[in-house]
Amino acid sequence: ELEGLEKTKTEIMMNLGNPEEAFALSMIPNDGIGLARLEFIITSYIKVHPMALIHPEKVEDEEVLEEIDKLTGRYENKADFFVEKLAQGVATITAAFHPKPVVVRMSDFKSNEYESLIGGEYFEFGENNPMLGFRGASRYYDERYREGFALECKAMKKVRDDMGLTNLILMIPFCRRIEEAEKVLEEMKMNGLVRGENGLQVYMMTEIPSNVLLIDEFSQYFDGFSIGSNDLTQLTLGVDRDSEILASSFDERDEAVKKIVSMAVQGAKRNNKHSGLCGQAPSDFPEFAEFLVREGIDSISLNPDSVMKIGLKVLEVEKGIEKK
Amino acid sequence: ELEGLEKTKTEIMMNLGNPEEAFALSMIPNDGIGLARLEFIITSYIKVHPMALIHPEKVEDEEVLEEIDKLTGRYENKADFFVEKLAQGVATITAAFHPKPVVVRMSDFKSNEYESLIGGEYFEFGENNPMLGFRGASRYYDERYREGFALECKAMKKVRDDMGLTNLILMIPFCRRIEEAEKVLEEMKMNGLVRGENGLQVYMMTEIPSNVLLIDEFSQYFDGFSIGSNDLTQLTLGVDRDSEILASSFDERDEAVKKIVSMAVQGAKRNNKHSGLCGQAPSDFPEFAEFLVREGIDSISLNPDSVMKIGLKVLEVEKGIEKK
Repeated sequence: ELEGLEKTKTEIMMNLGNPEEAFALSMIPNDGIGLARLEFIITSYIKVHPMALIHPEKVEDEEVLEEIDKLTGRYENKADFFVEKLAQGVATITAAFHPKPVVVRMSDFKSNEYESLIGGEYFEFGENNPMLGFRGASRYYDERYREGFALECKAMKKVRDDMGLTNLILMIPFCRRIEEAEKVLEEMKMNGLVRGENGLQVYMMTEIPSNVLLIDEFSQYFDGFSIGSNDLTQLTLGVDRDSEILASSFDERDEAVKKIVSMAVQGAKRNNKHSGLCGQAPSDFPEFAEFLVREGIDSISLNPDSVMKIGLKVLEVEKGIEKK
Repeated sequence: ELEGLEKTKTEIMMNLGNPEEAFALSMIPNDGIGLARLEFIITSYIKVHPMALIHPEKVEDEEVLEEIDKLTGRYENKADFFVEKLAQGVATITAAFHPKPVVVRMSDFKSNEYESLIGGEYFEFGENNPMLGFRGASRYYDERYREGFALECKAMKKVRDDMGLTNLILMIPFCRRIEEAEKVLEEMKMNGLVRGENGLQVYMMTEIPSNVLLIDEFSQYFDGFSIGSNDLTQLTLGVDRDSEILASSFDERDEAVKKIVSMAVQGAKRNNKHSGLCGQAPSDFPEFAEFLVREGIDSISLNPDSVMKIGLKVLEVEKGIEKK
């Protein structure tokens, strides 16, 4: 009964992690989910490191083996436990927002988080700086996690084909180089996830300068780009945001970030790919949202509790553009 | 007695820090100094935080005050002690390589290093991550270090004008944004260092992506660019170089870095500015030196102990270009 609120052309989407809240929050006006994190599902429901389910003979500690058995109790093949649970969580979310598009980011645990999953210490090798370390795409084709990724694919395939929830879109995080892109896609094909097949779309997180610099080459492998502004900013300005003391006039004039963002946006337009942005920023800086709309970004994704506020900001900007 | 070594067109220069070795190392064939660090002179000869010499009334601890007095014993104005010592160290280096150009990088202590100078703890505010913190250009115009920078300028002016060692060139490190450039130059003018005046040239270290992205705008303020490849790479790839395990085929195809480096080189050419590179890289990867020569970089600066090796590599590449 909310006819009274005009739709915005720029898609206003939400971030989501907890499938249980899906239905409750779907009542908030929105254009779908811009970012769905698998982390919540994996920590709360599966709790087991995927590789521990595939190669149990490498788990030496008995107690862990039992805990796993107790969890995967009734499954012929432990791996299915992972696939089933994951599919089911994703399905809940997808169903709650059907038919609006739901973009799911494939797992992007930092390795010390992977390690704290049950059985994890047998498949992870400690890094001093996980934040800029072995994460995201660089795992998918690698001996250490290949088969884990396979299970994630099987789960997505199950949601799309078996349950016919075709409004599901996949997103690859932290992809550094071109080959990485190739290999990732190839891994997906081996797991029955072919781009385009049955309307499957695959997006790429754009959070490294090199993603922007090589955006044309990346375009051949992906259907859309989603800009992650936190890391992109740090990496672009080479600034550790912990020591800024706020000079009143600092942000009006900073172009480098805007430039690399618009390069990303234009790069997406140039290749007729979908572009979006998620991260703390636009809800922090209204005129940043304005700037995005002006750049003609396709969509913006927000925390549920600031949809209303930003939506309106967007609407008014669009009007400001039409009049002109 | 070294007739037998052909000169290379690409200038091969050296890194230097210790003025005492100047004369001894000047015997190595070279085209001047590509990078002279002030850090050594300041820690070994001056030992005092410049600001402590200007605003002694903020030094509460008596002992420190004395130590300062004992050092600056016979100077009317303590500040002159800083100027004199600095000028004299730089003079030694400049004289040793006269008339070849000597590029001096203005101080780029990290703040915890500044802090450990005598009297430092009264002028520095601890940062958790000094590496990406309050360093380089961002100090020169700032209330906290402005006057310190003034002394550095006075010392350089003294070396150039008073001693007539005009082969001295200045370089500004870690400059994030356009305004920073303006303000720095303005600070130098106030201290009698005007670009061009008496053949004065001012270079900029290029070690942040934003330097490359805004290279046209930066061109109006500087006479040359020197690429710092360590940080530039980390920032471009968003990679913490501590956790790469060697994939056999990893580096052949990585274009992002080459791209942003050539963007830097071309940006320099485009604006008829001098371009150079210093850092571990070219002495690590020969074909990187090759690539630089092909990009038509003006000069490369090395540790004294690898001048010979790289020189030759360059020579041969140049020949490879002329024949073609």
